Amino acid sequence: MLDGLFRPRAVAVIGASANPYSIGHIVVRNLCQYGFKGPVFPINPKGGVIRSMQAYQSILDVPGEVDLVNISIRNTFVPGVLEECGKKGVKFAIVHSAGFKEVGPEGEALEREMVATAHRNGIRIFGPNSQGIQNADPEVSVYANFTFVPQKPGNISIIAQGGGMGEMLKLHLHNVGLGHRMYCSYGNECDLTMPEILAYYGQDEGTRVIMMQTESFKDPRAFLEAAAEITPHKPILAMKSGRTTEGSVAVSSHTGALVDQAAMAEAMYRKAGVVAFTDTHQMVKAAIAMSTQAPPPGKRIGIVTNTGGPGIQAVDEAVSQGLQLAQWSETGTAKLRDSLFAEASVGNPVDVVATANHDHYHAAVSTLLAEPDTDMVLVFFVTAPFTDTDAIATRIKEATAESAKPVVVVVETYSEHYGLIDKLRAADLPVYEFPEDGARALAAMASYSQLRGRKREEAPELDVDHATAAAIIGEYAGRDRYLPQHLAFGLLAAYGVPVPSVAAVGGEDDLATAAAVTGFPCVLKVDAADVVHKSDEGGVVLDLQDAGALLAAFRELRDTFTGDEVSFVLMEQLPPGRELIVGATASPGLGSLVMFGLGGIFVEVMKDVAAAVAPLSRPEARELMQAIAGYSVLEGLRGRPGVDLVAVEDLLMRIARLAADFPEIAEMDLNPIFAYPSGRVPTAVDVRMKIS
Amino acid sequence: MLDGLFRPRAVAVIGASANPYSIGHIVVRNLCQYGFKGPVFPINPKGGVIRSMQAYQSILDVPGEVDLVNISIRNTFVPGVLEECGKKGVKFAIVHSAGFKEVGPEGEALEREMVATAHRNGIRIFGPNSQGIQNADPEVSVYANFTFVPQKPGNISIIAQGGGMGEMLKLHLHNVGLGHRMYCSYGNECDLTMPEILAYYGQDEGTRVIMMQTESFKDPRAFLEAAAEITPHKPILAMKSGRTTEGSVAVSSHTGALVDQAAMAEAMYRKAGVVAFTDTHQMVKAAIAMSTQAPPPGKRIGIVTNTGGPGIQAVDEAVSQGLQLAQWSETGTAKLRDSLFAEASVGNPVDVVATANHDHYHAAVSTLLAEPDTDMVLVFFVTAPFTDTDAIATRIKEATAESAKPVVVVVETYSEHYGLIDKLRAADLPVYEFPEDGARALAAMASYSQLRGRKREEAPELDVDHATAAAIIGEYAGRDRYLPQHLAFGLLAAYGVPVPSVAAVGGEDDLATAAAVTGFPCVLKVDAADVVHKSDEGGVVLDLQDAGALLAAFRELRDTFTGDEVSFVLMEQLPPGRELIVGATASPGLGSLVMFGLGGIFVEVMKDVAAAVAPLSRPEARELMQAIAGYSVLEGLRGRPGVDLVAVEDLLMRIARLAADFPEIAEMDLNPIFAYPSGRVPTAVDVRMKIS
Repeated sequence: MLDGLFRPRAVAVIGASANPYSIGHIVVRNLCQYGFKGPVFPINPKGGVIRSMQAYQSILDVPGEVDLVNISIRNTFVPGVLEECGKKGVKFAIVHSAGFKEVGPEGEALEREMVATAHRNGIRIFGPNSQGIQNADPEVSVYANFTFVPQKPGNISIIAQGGGMGEMLKLHLHNVGLGHRMYCSYGNECDLTMPEILAYYGQDEGTRVIMMQTESFKDPRAFLEAAAEITPHKPILAMKSGRTTEGSVAVSSHTGALVDQAAMAEAMYRKAGVVAFTDTHQMVKAAIAMSTQAPPPGKRIGIVTNTGGPGIQAVDEAVSQGLQLAQWSETGTAKLRDSLFAEASVGNPVDVVATANHDHYHAAVSTLLAEPDTDMVLVFFVTAPFTDTDAIATRIKEATAESAKPVVVVVETYSEHYGLIDKLRAADLPVYEFPEDGARALAAMASYSQLRGRKREEAPELDVDHATAAAIIGEYAGRDRYLPQHLAFGLLAAYGVPVPSVAAVGGEDDLATAAAVTGFPCVLKVDAADVVHKSDEGGVVLDLQDAGALLAAFRELRDTFTGDEVSFVLMEQLPPGRELIVGATASPGLGSLVMFGLGGIFVEVMKDVAAAVAPLSRPEARELMQAIAGYSVLEGLRGRPGVDLVAVEDLLMRIARLAADFPEIAEMDLNPIFAYPSGRVPTAVDVRMKIS
Repeated sequence: MLDGLFRPRAVAVIGASANPYSIGHIVVRNLCQYGFKGPVFPINPKGGVIRSMQAYQSILDVPGEVDLVNISIRNTFVPGVLEECGKKGVKFAIVHSAGFKEVGPEGEALEREMVATAHRNGIRIFGPNSQGIQNADPEVSVYANFTFVPQKPGNISIIAQGGGMGEMLKLHLHNVGLGHRMYCSYGNECDLTMPEILAYYGQDEGTRVIMMQTESFKDPRAFLEAAAEITPHKPILAMKSGRTTEGSVAVSSHTGALVDQAAMAEAMYRKAGVVAFTDTHQMVKAAIAMSTQAPPPGKRIGIVTNTGGPGIQAVDEAVSQGLQLAQWSETGTAKLRDSLFAEASVGNPVDVVATANHDHYHAAVSTLLAEPDTDMVLVFFVTAPFTDTDAIATRIKEATAESAKPVVVVVETYSEHYGLIDKLRAADLPVYEFPEDGARALAAMASYSQLRGRKREEAPELDVDHATAAAIIGEYAGRDRYLPQHLAFGLLAAYGVPVPSVAAVGGEDDLATAAAVTGFPCVLKVDAADVVHKSDEGGVVLDLQDAGALLAAFRELRDTFTGDEVSFVLMEQLPPGRELIVGATASPGLGSLVMFGLGGIFVEVMKDVAAAVAPLSRPEARELMQAIAGYSVLEGLRGRPGVDLVAVEDLLMRIARLAADFPEIAEMDLNPIFAYPSGRVPTAVDVRMKIS
């Protein structure tokens, strides 16, 4: 439990100083200014007065118990001070000081020493090189952080790796008059980890929404587990910074890693039910909506407006974001017609017209909320000169009070009518400036509903020949090499992944035996680590109809591809099917990621790939297929047959299980797999597999 | 010239009233409150005092000349009043009143009568059912509009079809402390048209940027011409509302219209060099940057920050928007190293670190602006407690003052330091709240630079057989029918579009003659208006190697496809090539739109199509190809040959010329076209053409 950190009874500030620009000073000021409920003890070996408080020369001089210390002294002094803190019974130390892991080996050693000292003394370290923590719960009101945004209680908690980004999230909440619940920017994460803090937020009853920003995952598996525990009962909204730099989806199908950090984040977010964002402002706006509104039961939006254009903008954005326009029942339509002006439009959007008053708004909003096929409502209101804005706010509030469906309001007005916005916000209604923002916030809520409503299953045990697979891998483990193709196929076969008949070919003498295995027609391929695009490089001969053709092909390939590492493989020739690409990449700290796409241009040109964390449950396998834009090709287009989707699920589950069971598989690339309509199993036609 | 509208010497308000909620009252108030330089004359048949001004009973009683009247009286009274206005020499009438075209046939008749009366009296009508106009030029300061956003001079002019959207654009400029130049929301557009107003804005020296919102184009060709005149010297930023409702890209390749209103807008914007937006807020933010910053010479961005995370966000967004990260010269890097703290990072982003002061910012920004390979700079600044924000603003201003390259600033701060933002804005620097906003604004400017820098050429005359084409079309014009396939191919051939040898087949007796034309192997196809997807429906037999096979195929098709309208066609069989789809749709008021995509899943699944206005110049033909995501397939992927791009340009130019020359071609769908590497011309393999 992190109560000692986020709900400390007393805080000591080690490195407190009279210099108003020092971190130690600012932390003392923030703690006092925002009314920390316990005592604050400034510590400075020279003593002195800091913000009218007498400083203690050592923490050992402080009367009573201290749960938390903020430390902003020179890096090398930290371990010594922690020894004293241990004697005092301190439980948590926020280390603001820099000069640790981030500066090289010496700092790294110091960081290790600091953690060891802390643990020996029963202390957990937050940081170092960190901003600090806050908890705006009025019962605690702790601002043990050196930043500047005023603290005010709210129900959105923030966890950020970077201080600049964390502060930005908090700042925007402040700018729209909202506060936050807990806040932390965790810096080096040397001891106390992000997943531990996330789990703590998850259990905090005062936290309704969690916003997080991450640059890199130190322990992705722990994050995944913590997040998955939370999302069934409260939303996590997340951004992964660096999606393009280290990050843009690497899809060159054969070469290098098939998945990257950004893909890893995407896969983890999907698996854990986290709502992912790429834009800071959009995430904050969605969080604001979720902090007061319940997730919608579906994705059908109703829109009320008093002017046409912004209503159209809301429709455009809502539809672009995957929402659907709701349709009213006959009763609903009649009710709208009865209660609105004759010139009002009772379609969707409902245009109550500019002269509509508060009662018209009440009628429109409450009618839409009562509609069984409407899941959420966006209200647009431009302050026409003839409307009573106070009454508008009151009546919209009344209309929404009884409904569990989410409502957002977009107000077009200027400073004279800001009271309207304040009043709507006081009624717990999210208010935005542009119609697109309202539509996007609702769409984010619908995404959360969809993620939360998914069937969650454990990946099942499968009937596999683990021993054979282990034997193949055992022979190559530690050699960081590609498996010969016939062994790679053997490995797949051991895990029940359908493969063609295949036989290794060392020389001309092997051809007859090999052909007996594969039959005719067959395919002869070169098998060498440095021949990545076999077909492009002329290393594949198809349609070999008899022994003569096979011999001729073999001689040609053998003359073309020379070298110690080159061998050849003969394979049964399969009828052409829909090409799939499935890859897996070992992802340290997480396990293995499975990548899925369609063959050819889908991956190469359209970069249409998705990734998931191995192993996969059946619903996760389907979800991975559905995550690509080309999914409709698999379902079947315009009457043309699709592929056996359940068989592809099976295939994905088996490949993912193999990757999960053997982290030694650094890379696995099944390209292509031929998939067929029901009646024929999808089969891996080519495979590359690297064992580390 | 529209000076009488936007620079009137005197304004009369007909329908002025003492009721403060009436339009007539509000217009009088706005005119007076914002200091219109000429006299304002309230007109009310009952006389009376309106805002301390004596009302005149008729415009004829007003002393002196009146250029402009605002009319908000009952619809049926308008024509009568216009007669009086004519006697008075009024030049422009803004009609706020509704009850015209938008209410049905009676209103439409009244609207026609009003326009006729106006024209007879030398008056142009703005509206009806319109908000009005503004010109914040201090020499005029006319607020002849009944809305509420305070007027302040600026250099961004706004033209909006919808009042709600126009006001929203103006409102946001106001909210960030900016004003605007001219403004209008034009309503029914019964007389004075949007393109006329746009042209006026284009010639106004005080207008540096134009923002426009449109729901539908009354005269698209006039818009295209007006916009194309303006964009070489000032940017037009535009939104088309309704991009999804009437609007989402219709790409079912054979059926219905191949292009829609949204595609039309996209095509016109690209041709005219207009920067297109789908998000209101993004457009406003881009306009703000363009109102003070010059377009960048290229797309390489340099970033300066004092905290890491937001710098990464800026990188992510910049790269996603098509910008490139600039690289510094050795001199530049050395200069950064010399002038910044040792712990600063001198890559891109330059991280000056949180303790950096104003001089560090000055050094970083001025160094980047001096770099030859940096086209624009984004400055991020979080107000650390130890910085002198006033000095920061001053030094950033100094660093940017001498450079013509655009700079945007993102400031992370709260109300205590808003003075910093004001000071930066006063120095003509655009200031944003989120790093993504700064990156997007710069990316929009780079788009404008790219559009402005394109080679502009007229579509050339081509060597075509117009007479043959006219004869074929003449025979079918007015019958709203599909051309028989052999005639459609003949039409294409007349315009130099390569087609296979083709012959119509009526019955078995024609087979021998037809086969003599096409040779073997050949392809037999059904030709019927209601067989849209011939292959899917079994209406195409490929690979006919001899007369026997042909006869058998013919008999089978004839038995399968029956009916009066069914005929058959025999075609030369071409070697398979890269499939292209080219379509054209008559687009009333504009001419014809040409649609381009790649065959199969590119269009059907990925909706990867682009549209252009016919006819096409050679650069426009290439631009149309480059507008699709799959363009790299045409260039050639991973060493595989691409297609002859110049030959595809030729093809597109010929098809576009045909569409442009014959507006009777309601729809034309060449699907597929086989394109080949150089040495073989791309050839249309199937065509459907509907003549209206």
